[in-house]
Amino acid sequence: MQWSPDGALRIVDQRRLPGEFVERDLRTVAEVAEAIRTLAVRGAPAIGVAAAMGLAAAVWHATRVGAGPALLADVAAVRAFVHGGAAELRAARPTAVNLGWALDRMRDVLDRDPGVGVTPLTAALRAEAEAIRAEDEAMCAAIGAAGRELLRDGMRVLTHCNAGALATAGIGTALAPVYAAVEAGLRIEVFADETRPLLQGSRLTAWELARAGVPVTVITDGMAGSVMAAGKIDLVLVGADRIAANGDSANKIGTYALAVLAKHHRIPFVVVAPSSSIDARAPTGAEIPIEERGADEVTHLAGARVAAAGATVFNPAFDVTPAALISHIVTEAGVLCAPFRFDHAPIALPPA
Amino acid sequence: MQWSPDGALRIVDQRRLPGEFVERDLRTVAEVAEAIRTLAVRGAPAIGVAAAMGLAAAVWHATRVGAGPALLADVAAVRAFVHGGAAELRAARPTAVNLGWALDRMRDVLDRDPGVGVTPLTAALRAEAEAIRAEDEAMCAAIGAAGRELLRDGMRVLTHCNAGALATAGIGTALAPVYAAVEAGLRIEVFADETRPLLQGSRLTAWELARAGVPVTVITDGMAGSVMAAGKIDLVLVGADRIAANGDSANKIGTYALAVLAKHHRIPFVVVAPSSSIDARAPTGAEIPIEERGADEVTHLAGARVAAAGATVFNPAFDVTPAALISHIVTEAGVLCAPFRFDHAPIALPPA
Repeated sequence: MQWSPDGALRIVDQRRLPGEFVERDLRTVAEVAEAIRTLAVRGAPAIGVAAAMGLAAAVWHATRVGAGPALLADVAAVRAFVHGGAAELRAARPTAVNLGWALDRMRDVLDRDPGVGVTPLTAALRAEAEAIRAEDEAMCAAIGAAGRELLRDGMRVLTHCNAGALATAGIGTALAPVYAAVEAGLRIEVFADETRPLLQGSRLTAWELARAGVPVTVITDGMAGSVMAAGKIDLVLVGADRIAANGDSANKIGTYALAVLAKHHRIPFVVVAPSSSIDARAPTGAEIPIEERGADEVTHLAGARVAAAGATVFNPAFDVTPAALISHIVTEAGVLCAPFRFDHAPIALPPA
Repeated sequence: MQWSPDGALRIVDQRRLPGEFVERDLRTVAEVAEAIRTLAVRGAPAIGVAAAMGLAAAVWHATRVGAGPALLADVAAVRAFVHGGAAELRAARPTAVNLGWALDRMRDVLDRDPGVGVTPLTAALRAEAEAIRAEDEAMCAAIGAAGRELLRDGMRVLTHCNAGALATAGIGTALAPVYAAVEAGLRIEVFADETRPLLQGSRLTAWELARAGVPVTVITDGMAGSVMAAGKIDLVLVGADRIAANGDSANKIGTYALAVLAKHHRIPFVVVAPSSSIDARAPTGAEIPIEERGADEVTHLAGARVAAAGATVFNPAFDVTPAALISHIVTEAGVLCAPFRFDHAPIALPPA
């Protein structure tokens, strides 16, 4: 994620990977919300960064004098625009807590100086979005440095979905320890669940790891158990979209099954996420809302119908892994061992 | 599977389902082997029936006087043809023990009467193939009657891959108890794993259950764990391609993970297969050969590339579920409870 030369939010359209590398410049809240809703931008941290940068870019474009009259002529209009835009963006993906967190930060900018003018307010919103982006990049680096301690030379890591560079503004969350370890000269091999229904593992994780020169093997989600049984996995690294106060973690559908399988095979199961994913207001995973997505993600592939008509489809986007199945939670603050207790996240994490 | 009016083997081309219902008539060993290898015909029992019927049909067509001179003019040529054809068909799918079993029966026909002529030998081969087909149909009915005892009104059953009518010459193996229970008036609901990479669950199981009026919900393979955790599954029914003497069972990749998940959630895990799937010469699952299939089944979907280039792919077609994770094995002889011991399969199973 970056700023285009004319102030738009520039994203890699992840729906086109791995076939094509296409960048898109987004200039309106509707465009950004659509990109988040359709998963052109996905990954909890990336969604937060994109929402903040996209909101700032939309304000910028709506206030500047271009071909026509500026849409937002006064501060009251900017404030209303930010409130409305934040609400629209928040609704695009209900499970990602980072989205709400980033948008709250953008709205807080409105309260800093009641007497501010349109131009400095627009600049302040842009600066806040850039800070969120830069912080995410730094957070990924810190997560990588912390999580690297769990890796040893020659380890085989299993991951699910994509919690890599494409999911953040930096080197990723779950994949950050891998990148940090490889950077430090360790040989790490990754097994990537393809992650149905949207194949983020085979499309995105395999793409970014292969591009970075990290050996990666794609398996179907159903193979994870037998790969573990064959002794080919030393560690599981997954991301999290939201972590409850007790450590229960919501992540891409299929993560929970991996956690059960890892426990059965006595393989450490590690959740890696920025502390902004921690929702201390949710005492347990039962309080985390789970987004259900359209049936066509399961019934159709590449535009062709693959599931028989007449069948019902169940398509929750996430599942919740109970803390009891998680051996470690890695955040930018360090590696936490079970049992977990987050009372005042994200700020009160113990220091690394 | 049936005979066409002109003596060919008529199959439903399962590669075209659920989009199209296409029947094909096969007249040569090469056509039958290709249909088995490319999964136009699949499912362990169906493969055995198709190989036997296909071999008989190929002999029939090669011996009859048609447009040109008959290919097989004497008994020695027929014998050589059957031996060669059986070897070619056996190599088409190495894991399915039913395939070798059915072909052994066809070759045994050659030894019955050394002085037999071409016409009676051809007729005897055809009669043996028809007997194998009819026995499979009866076996499915017996499996259904036996397995039905495990089902109660209102039960929700999870299944994997397709071990239904499409996989046999009758009402299926794993799905036979469901059909028998529904026939008896019980309300049974089925959850079908889509079963990547080839989607036999969403394409075939959902198709045949919906066609029969049985409520079926398709889920991705990664959802099975969370569906179990939500209390939505009462029983798991899966087929088997080969069962070792100790009860270890090879079945479609992903079955092993389901067994681990079922154990974690204390859900009965039931393997359903004809006794011809029991390979008493394999003491444990470690002796069962596992077919590895092409990477393109994982990297491509509906002709489009979905996995990043540069990634390695691992694509075993089957995995082995240890007997310790299996609560019951259902065959045409009845319901067996753990622990399992098959010393002289298929004939020495205890009576139901």
